[in-house]
Amino acid sequence: MKIGFIGLGIMGSRMAANLQRHGHALVVHNRTREKADALLSGGATWADSPAALATQVEIIFTMLAPTQSVVNAALSEDGFLSKLAPGRLWVDCSTVAPTFSRSMAEEAKVRGIRFLDAPVSGSRSPAALGTLVFWVGGAAADLKACRPLLECMGSQVVHCGGTGAGTSLKIVMNQLLGTGMAAFAEALVLGESLGLSREVLLEALIGGAAAAPFLKLKRERIEKGNYEPADFPLRWLQKDLHLATTSAYHTGVAMPVTNAAKEIYRLAIRAGRGDADFSALYAYLAEQRDVHDGQQHAPGGNRPTATLDRPRSS
Amino acid sequence: MKIGFIGLGIMGSRMAANLQRHGHALVVHNRTREKADALLSGGATWADSPAALATQVEIIFTMLAPTQSVVNAALSEDGFLSKLAPGRLWVDCSTVAPTFSRSMAEEAKVRGIRFLDAPVSGSRSPAALGTLVFWVGGAAADLKACRPLLECMGSQVVHCGGTGAGTSLKIVMNQLLGTGMAAFAEALVLGESLGLSREVLLEALIGGAAAAPFLKLKRERIEKGNYEPADFPLRWLQKDLHLATTSAYHTGVAMPVTNAAKEIYRLAIRAGRGDADFSALYAYLAEQRDVHDGQQHAPGGNRPTATLDRPRSS
Amino acid sequence: MKIGFIGLGIMGSRMAANLQRHGHALVVHNRTREKADALLSGGATWADSPAALATQVEIIFTMLAPTQSVVNAALSEDGFLSKLAPGRLWVDCSTVAPTFSRSMAEEAKVRGIRFLDAPVSGSRSPAALGTLVFWVGGAAADLKACRPLLECMGSQVVHCGGTGAGTSLKIVMNQLLGTGMAAFAEALVLGESLGLSREVLLEALIGGAAAAPFLKLKRERIEKGNYEPADFPLRWLQKDLHLATTSAYHTGVAMPVTNAAKEIYRLAIRAGRGDADFSALYAYLAEQRDVHDGQQHAPGGNRPTATLDRPRSS
Amino acid sequence: MKIGFIGLGIMGSRMAANLQRHGHALVVHNRTREKADALLSGGATWADSPAALATQVEIIFTMLAPTQSVVNAALSEDGFLSKLAPGRLWVDCSTVAPTFSRSMAEEAKVRGIRFLDAPVSGSRSPAALGTLVFWVGGAAADLKACRPLLECMGSQVVHCGGTGAGTSLKIVMNQLLGTGMAAFAEALVLGESLGLSREVLLEALIGGAAAAPFLKLKRERIEKGNYEPADFPLRWLQKDLHLATTSAYHTGVAMPVTNAAKEIYRLAIRAGRGDADFSALYAYLAEQRDVHDGQQHAPGGNRPTATLDRPRSS
Repeated sequence: MKIGFIGLGIMGSRMAANLQRHGHALVVHNRTREKADALLSGGATWADSPAALATQVEIIFTMLAPTQSVVNAALSEDGFLSKLAPGRLWVDCSTVAPTFSRSMAEEAKVRGIRFLDAPVSGSRSPAALGTLVFWVGGAAADLKACRPLLECMGSQVVHCGGTGAGTSLKIVMNQLLGTGMAAFAEALVLGESLGLSREVLLEALIGGAAAAPFLKLKRERIEKGNYEPADFPLRWLQKDLHLATTSAYHTGVAMPVTNAAKEIYRLAIRAGRGDADFSALYAYLAEQRDVHDGQQHAPGGNRPTATLDRPRSS
Repeated sequence: MKIGFIGLGIMGSRMAANLQRHGHALVVHNRTREKADALLSGGATWADSPAALATQVEIIFTMLAPTQSVVNAALSEDGFLSKLAPGRLWVDCSTVAPTFSRSMAEEAKVRGIRFLDAPVSGSRSPAALGTLVFWVGGAAADLKACRPLLECMGSQVVHCGGTGAGTSLKIVMNQLLGTGMAAFAEALVLGESLGLSREVLLEALIGGAAAAPFLKLKRERIEKGNYEPADFPLRWLQKDLHLATTSAYHTGVAMPVTNAAKEIYRLAIRAGRGDADFSALYAYLAEQRDVHDGQQHAPGGNRPTATLDRPRSS
Repeated sequence: MKIGFIGLGIMGSRMAANLQRHGHALVVHNRTREKADALLSGGATWADSPAALATQVEIIFTMLAPTQSVVNAALSEDGFLSKLAPGRLWVDCSTVAPTFSRSMAEEAKVRGIRFLDAPVSGSRSPAALGTLVFWVGGAAADLKACRPLLECMGSQVVHCGGTGAGTSLKIVMNQLLGTGMAAFAEALVLGESLGLSREVLLEALIGGAAAAPFLKLKRERIEKGNYEPADFPLRWLQKDLHLATTSAYHTGVAMPVTNAAKEIYRLAIRAGRGDADFSALYAYLAEQRDVHDGQQHAPGGNRPTATLDRPRSS
Repeated sequence: MKIGFIGLGIMGSRMAANLQRHGHALVVHNRTREKADALLSGGATWADSPAALATQVEIIFTMLAPTQSVVNAALSEDGFLSKLAPGRLWVDCSTVAPTFSRSMAEEAKVRGIRFLDAPVSGSRSPAALGTLVFWVGGAAADLKACRPLLECMGSQVVHCGGTGAGTSLKIVMNQLLGTGMAAFAEALVLGESLGLSREVLLEALIGGAAAAPFLKLKRERIEKGNYEPADFPLRWLQKDLHLATTSAYHTGVAMPVTNAAKEIYRLAIRAGRGDADFSALYAYLAEQRDVHDGQQHAPGGNRPTATLDRPRSS
């Protein structure tokens, strides 16, 4: 059985390599061919277009961003969807809106193609190690058919429900990631402004009950002020916060905290931090150019003033 | 050595009981005497006022809310501060603003009294089990002097820095708690509106990398819709979010996400959920009275519509 | 010259009536035919579908919500766009995203049809009186061709720029309207909670430098607590805030205040106020079900407590 | 009758000059004496301290910021309050929290002094022209006694209610000002990002129904990018937004939009715009350092992309 893989970026190249490592024959396509070199050396076949790829494979994985790239790969003149033989399976691992997954499933269905949305949790390193988590939406039978392949790339495969359930869960996950990072960045900046050392703060918070576990992975970046290369660019997470809030709009749900987070990430992007790891939100919020002498901000540590909060000594 | 304990609410009564259990002699005071009954049966001495208590003890613990109660206990006509012999130690376990701790330390100092701010993490159950975490600000020597007592009540004692460092860390902790709960509530409501079952969501999120560990303790409440009795009333957490954002104002820090969370908790209080456990924020956000027929909100599950997000099929 | 008019709701019916009043021959279509009765009595011709209408007219006005209705009217199987003769003009008065206007202009262009986006400011009453303001995007020549018709329906016609400029300005306008109403609602609720009478507040604020002029039109509603029938339903304004923030996302702009407003309108919709006039946001924010005795909220007026803000009396 | 005036900054110096111009004898005090030079040349008497001033006058006006300055002037060792003869009147024109006004009124009352809170609307120029608006809280009889003096400095004197009603209204007013400016700044930045010219935007919005009248006064600043010298420094308005949201906290009111605005002003201060006129919030939000080539932000005008919002052409 030949497997098609479209989208060989940071994630896709590592995922495809794991399929290859398990002995699967690949036909690959990417916008820029250089990204495919390692896979081609390993025996993969190059296809000049998604359409050309489609005629050679029984299953297609796509791992693309942004959404428009998925549209182009699937539905453009050179797209694969109209070239796939009926009954084939398309597994979209891209992080997209659940409504988009559902519309892709419909486009597939009218052509007799089966569809799974199967976005992943985990970034560069879990992709390389094959320890991603797959959140899958679609028919159980279709998942059963491709589960062995997913297990080459991930250590956990979760069936979340019907079409769109995978991307729904992924969106929720990244909304938690984005707001969690923002809340933690605010916590650190507040704590330091109150005179606590960063060391005391990180030691007390990370690993504690109130800080999300993923923050452990960000500790070293924060300590060293080193946000490049990005595991997960801030710009992408802002996109996912937008997907979450837009989905919420369409289902009539209120997300005031998530919207506030979304806007702060946007301000950080505008301040030039879009390509940095998303933990750079801390660096953005910690930045301070105010030099007003009348302020209580001493260099090297802000000293809060007690003026208004002093109780009366009776 | 006799120990004074003022403030015998949910937390204080359990903390004092642990001191007693370890064989310490207590003199206690509380606004309402009934709360002291168990301790008195156990051998504690009742004091009619903070002032009356002060003359009998070498160390005083206070565990009070709101801030004004601390002021009253310490500085009113009946207050303990002017009655304590010089050199005595006051340990304030209340959750208050760092600026307030610093002003209390000054009030103490001018009377020759030593002061530690030592707020705790953990609610009802860790208070009973003696597994609280103490975040301590003040002189190392003063902490050394009372550490054995703190270890009767808590399993971890962290020296965070000088005066106010304990309350600073506590405020930061509760800011994380409050925003973390709000982000999670929004995640759940979004996920359910997208058609995911609450079970799938809780299973995928809780214990995962993106959800703070304390949420495990809230799972059963959310599953059963049972927010009473409160471990930590929503109203109190909103107060702590206010302490955090006010502290941030005074040190010149921006906390847009925390401010957004603070306001949502306020709306939840106004909607009648102030006395419920703070995890009731989920119930508040999940509540829906909109019955417009043109809406996509089917009873029992919202169905998102794809209208605007449909890509073009070229 | 025959004029087509599609969409005879609150706004469209009144706009079409003004065209008729000026002697223009109309062919009309609406989802429900009853809405057309008055116009048909006045001499208008009924068309069973947008397509049927298209073959009889030289210019088409559309006044529809939501966006999908515009898509259906223009591009569905029964849509008008493929039936219009080349060179005809489509004027879309609907409030939609600028990106949507631009895509409609493209759809029109490939069929040789000219396109103007021409949304309006003003609600029920200006629509009836012919005193709307038209914000027009598109070619100057196309505007020139239909300006006399627009002047039958509005007192001001502003050419804002190329395609999408009209809807861009309209979105900006409604973003100001929505946030302005929200800011004013918060002002009123705060003022009343501080003990000011609503009369003093309305007298001082409305007509002053800090309150937008449109608030004059909302005064009576607020004084009487009467938000029905809606001039402009709260639900629609929330949609426009969504259009604004989504547009901002696509152009990379931050709108933290507008996003916060958007979410509060959403909460008001969820609380059952979606069909009320958007000034009901005040009623939503003023609502209070908290009955905690420990709170400072006396019935009939909240009394602020001075505790923390008391300065020290030295 | 001799009049005391304490606080000769941008506002106070101009207000005192108007009293002098109307023939009133002044005794003045200021932290730095130079600010008093013009008044002293005009015949005013200098007092070395608030206490020294108190013994010479029948009425005292204070116009001070921040709050602590009022505390110092009134209640410190050198303060005026304990030196004023019983029955004298203190009129505080400072912008402070209503709770603070109420506590000052109490401090005054215990010494037999009458108190009015009388903050003003209007900045530098109305102060010079004597066209301020006074918002007064306190007893009607006390207002009657000093109304002629207020009318030397302002064109409108509004009795808002009992003690604290003046500062309550002022806080509400500035909350509207701050959120209104923020909403307008977001509107402009959005409009420009959508391709509208600043000229078209300012022409359409300013003077229209949705933009607050005070924005007319900011138009030239925005057009010229000239925010110095400040009529009203951004930093001060942020303080007033803090007063509003803190007051709201104490009265149990939710102000999500105002809190969001407060945080954006804070970010603008941190970015170095605290001393600029508050209309510089626009410049802050318009600033853009993102240079990612994959973005749709062309220099000189962002071009929105339609990707996700394209409807399907069926």
